[in-house]
Amino acid sequence: MAEPLFPAASLVTLRARLNALPGPDEAAAGAARTRQGNLTKPPGSLGRLEDLAIFMAGWQGKERPRIDKAQAVVFAGNHGVCAQGVNPYPQEVTVQMVANFRAGGAAVNQLCRASGAELSVVELELDRPTGDFTQGLAMSEAELLEAMMRGAEALDPAADVLLLGEMGIGNSTVAAALAHATFGGSAADWVGPGTGSDDAGIRRKISAIEAGAQRHAGLLDDPFTTLMAFGGREQAAICGAVLAARALRIPVLLDGYICTAAAAVLARLEGDALAHCIVSHASAEPGQRRLLVHLGKQAVLDMGMRLGEGSGAAVALGVLRAALEAHNGMATFAEAGVSGV
Amino acid sequence: MAEPLFPAASLVTLRARLNALPGPDEAAAGAARTRQGNLTKPPGSLGRLEDLAIFMAGWQGKERPRIDKAQAVVFAGNHGVCAQGVNPYPQEVTVQMVANFRAGGAAVNQLCRASGAELSVVELELDRPTGDFTQGLAMSEAELLEAMMRGAEALDPAADVLLLGEMGIGNSTVAAALAHATFGGSAADWVGPGTGSDDAGIRRKISAIEAGAQRHAGLLDDPFTTLMAFGGREQAAICGAVLAARALRIPVLLDGYICTAAAAVLARLEGDALAHCIVSHASAEPGQRRLLVHLGKQAVLDMGMRLGEGSGAAVALGVLRAALEAHNGMATFAEAGVSGV
Repeated sequence: MAEPLFPAASLVTLRARLNALPGPDEAAAGAARTRQGNLTKPPGSLGRLEDLAIFMAGWQGKERPRIDKAQAVVFAGNHGVCAQGVNPYPQEVTVQMVANFRAGGAAVNQLCRASGAELSVVELELDRPTGDFTQGLAMSEAELLEAMMRGAEALDPAADVLLLGEMGIGNSTVAAALAHATFGGSAADWVGPGTGSDDAGIRRKISAIEAGAQRHAGLLDDPFTTLMAFGGREQAAICGAVLAARALRIPVLLDGYICTAAAAVLARLEGDALAHCIVSHASAEPGQRRLLVHLGKQAVLDMGMRLGEGSGAAVALGVLRAALEAHNGMATFAEAGVSGV
Repeated sequence: MAEPLFPAASLVTLRARLNALPGPDEAAAGAARTRQGNLTKPPGSLGRLEDLAIFMAGWQGKERPRIDKAQAVVFAGNHGVCAQGVNPYPQEVTVQMVANFRAGGAAVNQLCRASGAELSVVELELDRPTGDFTQGLAMSEAELLEAMMRGAEALDPAADVLLLGEMGIGNSTVAAALAHATFGGSAADWVGPGTGSDDAGIRRKISAIEAGAQRHAGLLDDPFTTLMAFGGREQAAICGAVLAARALRIPVLLDGYICTAAAAVLARLEGDALAHCIVSHASAEPGQRRLLVHLGKQAVLDMGMRLGEGSGAAVALGVLRAALEAHNGMATFAEAGVSGV
């Protein structure tokens, strides 16, 4: 992709620029695969760690990929659909949690420190929630493009891997709406407890999604109009960051359900738009497993987490670093004088 | 347990000393559980990370457990049952891999460096394999007690967590024999490809285990005579280390199938002898999932690994560190001024 994706005057412009998503460097991936076969272990015995190293080699274009700079970004937004009573927490919690991120007190701060990721937070007009999607569009085309650009701009082009997370009271309902629009099924298939909804809260989430799907039925055959229909800004920013990372062949660690559902709207683009993305964990939110099936991806972790913020991506980064340490540091059979089979 | 477990003149002596395994500090675990409920996240939303922090609090006896010193030990042994053609690699690979561990070239070296564990290797008479269990006892009582003592001695009493691993060509057959003797079922239930056996190799493994189970039928109702029957020295050393760690209430990360099967013989002792042990990963070796069911434990990771060496424990240590970082470092709702539900 020769020209930058953003700013884009319209979705027509953006779509035209997305017609040539770069793929991985197959030669580098092949060299990494060969190296794995020569390391002092039975072939394949490091399981997923081997796959992760080869994946990183392909996207970084190096037989021995490295993570010198791991960038984590949490996008925060607010959601008009909270008017439908879809979340037990007050919407002010979004801005309070942003303050907590900035003060270093949230889970993602500790988990990024533990795995060596540089964390930043991008606030997306928290005092101006998206529209209530049961009543109308969540975002105009201009608002969508602006939020996507904020996501793309957040990417550090020098990052060796990008971790994505989100914060936004009510956004598990938005995630479920996006997944339902993208992959079908019933609204209930995609709804879970989120931050802690009871049965009545879950019924309100389902009702809101059904109302939105009915209202926006004509918009749901396209990723971008789907985002306009349901929002939110942080979901759009995640899509912008995923696409910007792809343009630079920077591999991405998606977090849990909300982050994965946001990126998953891009699955309908040409060219396997999520090929450079790893799903960090299979969360406790039941829709995440459905997403994994639809995306044909396997999560790195399965820890019953359901916090968001990028918390699962930060834990998965530690596993990814371990995979690269083994890949880059192990002796070959020849180097170690160990007999092969 | 007032007196040290080892040296023990006989199994009678050892058994008498095992009659009072200490439990976790429930007050510390309770304080940690309360703390988790006050941290700035929906209750339970860090899933397994919360459980791990509370587990560590109980065994360390501190509301805020720490890992300043993580000790990893790989026990290496050789096995007479290799005479039955149960492994495609020559038995010399065990000593070659020990050299590789000492030179820093193996997977476990890289993975311990990545997660901050100090690695040591304990060779258990590699030039004197245990007896072929299809023909007689793998070990005498004296040999068993010696190997268990080597395991107990390896523990650093200052360790905050102990990671256990093993290396020994042929020892997936020993693991399957131990699990079969301990938990029943058919021999085939417990046998998998190990380092890479083909179908004929798997049949030889099953035949060897069936022959051993028949020969030693009278010994299999007791953990220690089961170890004498099948070996090996590294399995006995793992049991010794697990018991020594328990006496000091040091939590343990067991590795994959072979390490877990070794420790699992202790499940038949009184007093939940593995209560202080975490199973690091559900390996690709199919018997590991059966072990988890029998032990009532959930693995931390599920990465399709099947290498042994402590490699999975080293990766799981990174997750455990992440759990403690979140537990110890996060702000409470009150500290951060975030509204609760």
